[in-house]
Amino acid sequence: MSSATASRVLNRSAPVSAQIAARVESAVRELRYVRRRASAATSRDTGAIAVVAFADVLRFHADQFPVRLLAGAQRVVPDRELVVLTAGPGPARPSLVRYLCGGHVDGVLLVGRWGDPALPGLVQAAGVPVVALGRPPQSQRLAHVDADNLSGARAAVRLLHRAGRRRIATIAGPPDTAPGADRLAGYRRALLDHGDPTRCAVAYGDFGSRSGEHAMVRLLDQFPDVDAVFAASDAMAVGALRALRRLGRRVPDDVAVVGFDDSPAAASARPGLTTVRQPVEDLGARAVELLRDPSPTRSVVLPTHLVVRQSC
Amino acid sequence: MSSATASRVLNRSAPVSAQIAARVESAVRELRYVRRRASAATSRDTGAIAVVAFADVLRFHADQFPVRLLAGAQRVVPDRELVVLTAGPGPARPSLVRYLCGGHVDGVLLVGRWGDPALPGLVQAAGVPVVALGRPPQSQRLAHVDADNLSGARAAVRLLHRAGRRRIATIAGPPDTAPGADRLAGYRRALLDHGDPTRCAVAYGDFGSRSGEHAMVRLLDQFPDVDAVFAASDAMAVGALRALRRLGRRVPDDVAVVGFDDSPAAASARPGLTTVRQPVEDLGARAVELLRDPSPTRSVVLPTHLVVRQSC
Repeated sequence: MSSATASRVLNRSAPVSAQIAARVESAVRELRYVRRRASAATSRDTGAIAVVAFADVLRFHADQFPVRLLAGAQRVVPDRELVVLTAGPGPARPSLVRYLCGGHVDGVLLVGRWGDPALPGLVQAAGVPVVALGRPPQSQRLAHVDADNLSGARAAVRLLHRAGRRRIATIAGPPDTAPGADRLAGYRRALLDHGDPTRCAVAYGDFGSRSGEHAMVRLLDQFPDVDAVFAASDAMAVGALRALRRLGRRVPDDVAVVGFDDSPAAASARPGLTTVRQPVEDLGARAVELLRDPSPTRSVVLPTHLVVRQSC
Repeated sequence: MSSATASRVLNRSAPVSAQIAARVESAVRELRYVRRRASAATSRDTGAIAVVAFADVLRFHADQFPVRLLAGAQRVVPDRELVVLTAGPGPARPSLVRYLCGGHVDGVLLVGRWGDPALPGLVQAAGVPVVALGRPPQSQRLAHVDADNLSGARAAVRLLHRAGRRRIATIAGPPDTAPGADRLAGYRRALLDHGDPTRCAVAYGDFGSRSGEHAMVRLLDQFPDVDAVFAASDAMAVGALRALRRLGRRVPDDVAVVGFDDSPAAASARPGLTTVRQPVEDLGARAVELLRDPSPTRSVVLPTHLVVRQSC
């Protein structure tokens, strides 16, 4: 399977862009990988799976998300090592590519928004299976697991609508990320469900709490009748709570708030934050299972569910 | 150097216990490592350094300490991969030993309190240099870097004494850990400096916040005249603040509190926590530098300094 993937990339029979294919080929030459080595690498079991986290080190480690992910993945492979590497935005470091392709790991999970579209192809070309955690960009075909972000967001907005809210705003994530785009699509879809698609009120953040605080202020300024907000992350929702408190708006009386993630911050927020829970441990577990046969047409989408607390 | 270390362990010329030596030898046989492979492994540069964290995954990743450590280490080797593996208490998993010894990394940093005394010897026997972050148990000779825990604790208690406090208690960490033992020794040493070594008031915790809360209650019960407490971690100090608030004692008016670490929790505590800052980034940087020549007699001890806020 993995050598098939490798030769598909090397023979350009897979739908990869010309630019990516060129980078794969030049990197393969540069790193002196030959196809023979690919099969040699896979025949040796290293007992380890690499988890490559695309986020700056600080944010990756400070968040509970990767911890839960690793715990779920380890459950499936208790006798293997999960080795965590981090990567920044932009082209992957040569040392990272060399490590992933050099016979040191039996598989690679890509977590988050990867900066280098050539990376999955490079790793596959070395005969190492790759699975993405989170939907890859539309241009890339890659086996992946993801939470059902669209349905989760839609359920959150439906809950606000059922609670009698009539001017529901959203604090969206970056629209060029899959969770940002999918959760915004879920919001729009829910407004359509309720027959008021023109009453969209959108401000964008970066998933972080400060951006949520600023976005909430902008929303209230632009749409003074806002009586509810769906934030595409708990951190942004917590920022929104801070802005609302500062501006003297009561939650949920004046403005109801729903977040996304069910992070520890949601439970400890005042008032407790109603949110959409992702099955993070299960995402980790299914991703590792998928490594056994990561054909690029395979994807797993896991359901989310509402966790109702006091903010709505 | 590394093959010298390896043969020292294999020839038992290093001071290792008979039990550890037996485990090294049997594991070496079991894993079919022969001395020839040790030099082969080191001759190949993998471009990666393993960071093995001995703590359960959740605590390791939730804390800022490892993040700052990794950032400091990366500064020294910007062109290498730092691959993070975690280990629990007790004997190391066979897959971990196999990975560290299997030619996948050029060096190993051991972070925290390792459960398996045989692990460093096993890794060295495979020709891979090892450096410990934190002083190893007395029975083990191993290159290491550490913060000056004793002097840091001593300075914290001196500060409390200078502030006019005359019944200074301590919430100590587990005395079978190096930081637990060294910070307690610094506390005792400071009492001796001030001529009142018999006025020791000690309660033990596990470095976590809940244990600090319980310890504070016990101290007040046993020593009602306590007017200051030095906690061997910020988390325990935050727990102590919680207990004092609950019992109606004002901080610092009734009881002054000093912590250890300068973690993010210290800055956000109310009142702001006076504490001892460890140079965590520098510890990471020096540990990586030491990997270049980790002779077991080498150790680096870095100074700590007081960060004064409102709690004392």
